[in-house]
Amino acid sequence: MNVAFLGLGVMGGPMAGHLASAGHRVSVYNRTRSRAEDWAREHAGSIAATPAEATRGAELVFACVGNDDDVRAITLAPGGAFEALEPQAIFVDHTTDSATLARELDAAARARGAGCLDAPVSGGQSGAEQGRLTVMVGGELAAFDRARPAMEAYARKLVHLGPTGSGQLAKMVNQICIAGTLQGLAEGLHFAKQAGLDAHAVVDAISQGAAQSWQMDNRAATMLEGRYDFGFAVEWMRKDLGLALDESRRNGAKLELAELVAEFYAEVDAQGGRRWDTSSLLARLSSPDGER
Amino acid sequence: MNVAFLGLGVMGGPMAGHLASAGHRVSVYNRTRSRAEDWAREHAGSIAATPAEATRGAELVFACVGNDDDVRAITLAPGGAFEALEPQAIFVDHTTDSATLARELDAAARARGAGCLDAPVSGGQSGAEQGRLTVMVGGELAAFDRARPAMEAYARKLVHLGPTGSGQLAKMVNQICIAGTLQGLAEGLHFAKQAGLDAHAVVDAISQGAAQSWQMDNRAATMLEGRYDFGFAVEWMRKDLGLALDESRRNGAKLELAELVAEFYAEVDAQGGRRWDTSSLLARLSSPDGER
Repeated sequence: MNVAFLGLGVMGGPMAGHLASAGHRVSVYNRTRSRAEDWAREHAGSIAATPAEATRGAELVFACVGNDDDVRAITLAPGGAFEALEPQAIFVDHTTDSATLARELDAAARARGAGCLDAPVSGGQSGAEQGRLTVMVGGELAAFDRARPAMEAYARKLVHLGPTGSGQLAKMVNQICIAGTLQGLAEGLHFAKQAGLDAHAVVDAISQGAAQSWQMDNRAATMLEGRYDFGFAVEWMRKDLGLALDESRRNGAKLELAELVAEFYAEVDAQGGRRWDTSSLLARLSSPDGER
Repeated sequence: MNVAFLGLGVMGGPMAGHLASAGHRVSVYNRTRSRAEDWAREHAGSIAATPAEATRGAELVFACVGNDDDVRAITLAPGGAFEALEPQAIFVDHTTDSATLARELDAAARARGAGCLDAPVSGGQSGAEQGRLTVMVGGELAAFDRARPAMEAYARKLVHLGPTGSGQLAKMVNQICIAGTLQGLAEGLHFAKQAGLDAHAVVDAISQGAAQSWQMDNRAATMLEGRYDFGFAVEWMRKDLGLALDESRRNGAKLELAELVAEFYAEVDAQGGRRWDTSSLLARLSSPDGER
């Protein structure tokens, strides 16, 4: 298939690579051109000068960039993908952004006779590299069915969750759950240290029962070492929780914990943790092992 | 071995039963005598009129009751176990109570030439019934080594965590982690419903990634049905978080989320949820499926 991929960051780069490896003809665009050139040295594909150029002639157009503004810049702005979106093409937005934008993009795609899916992912950089992402999809089922085979190049799990916006809303649920789990884990480890316990031994004792979580299994040990370098950064989590809180003001959900944890991430950011991973909630509570 | 078991509630009853099945001579005491009689109809063992009577001649004395006051009543009060605790015997407290009480009991046991372990459990009623509890133990290692073989009758995992009080402190870590995970999950599910999503489908989509938790795997579906009948009750969680918050005032730990969730449980309690299970945090946010 002729496909376009807009945005070759730590997520988009490997995703576009898997599409190329699967035999698709990939036209790529990246704001910083040198990154597209790096990508093209490793993968079969052509570099476009603008999103519109990448999009022309593509049956599927994928995007994975930073936030709502970045998506607008590569879609609706002059030179953007929607200038060149073919009738019958499907635009698939893998960016985590607002459900409002998803609806706006869907309307713009329809106006051109094209389709649109909001399709944020989870699984992080390693999931993108290994082609094992989870994709949460909103939009028309027919469009999903057409885009799905290509997405299987980088996804382990593809779930259609309902009409336009549903993918973004599901991703928000994911981030809300993570926020609670991580803050609970951070306070638990912090308490263990303050109580003079061997926190590693405590984690070993409790990690097979009702306190278990992916975060406990995968991050407790590194949190205790003060290592916060696992990719999904505080600045992105701040953005994602901000999207959920914005949406909650529209749908009336009470997100008391998510609001509190969003403030905590702002504090971690202010203490220099913008690029630390999300488990760094512990850093605002206590110091690494041996530095209590 | 001659052993005593004090407290035959939903946890203690099955635990004492496993000791009897393992061939120990069990003398039981329960505040409400009829419950001891019920127990003795199903298990080989003798009923004592007081904790002291149960304790006389026992090499190991186990207790599993409600809270600090209940433990004091069966140990240090007149007619309590410590009146009759044999030199060389070991008192094992499976109650979840304060680290302060653990130290007090240890001192009282030592004064009689006996040993003492604080040994709260996790795994709930089903873990007790199936003999698959996790036991978090504080106290002298030599005492742990002597009591361990008997405890294996009802434990899948026995972990020695340090000096007297360490078992209780580790249990507090467990409850703090659970509080965060459950409130995050409750807000995530609440948000999903308010957003009009199929919350079951969302859970299916996100439950293999970074948002996964034991609570999500085991409670999300029943939470969405408004079923909160899984045993570990709000009133007990309120007590346990209260113990953690008390302790945090001594050791200087900042438990911002745990404090908030403790308030939420007080609200659930006030709305009639005293005996609902801990996943009922969702009940203060939203109604069951179909009643939004």
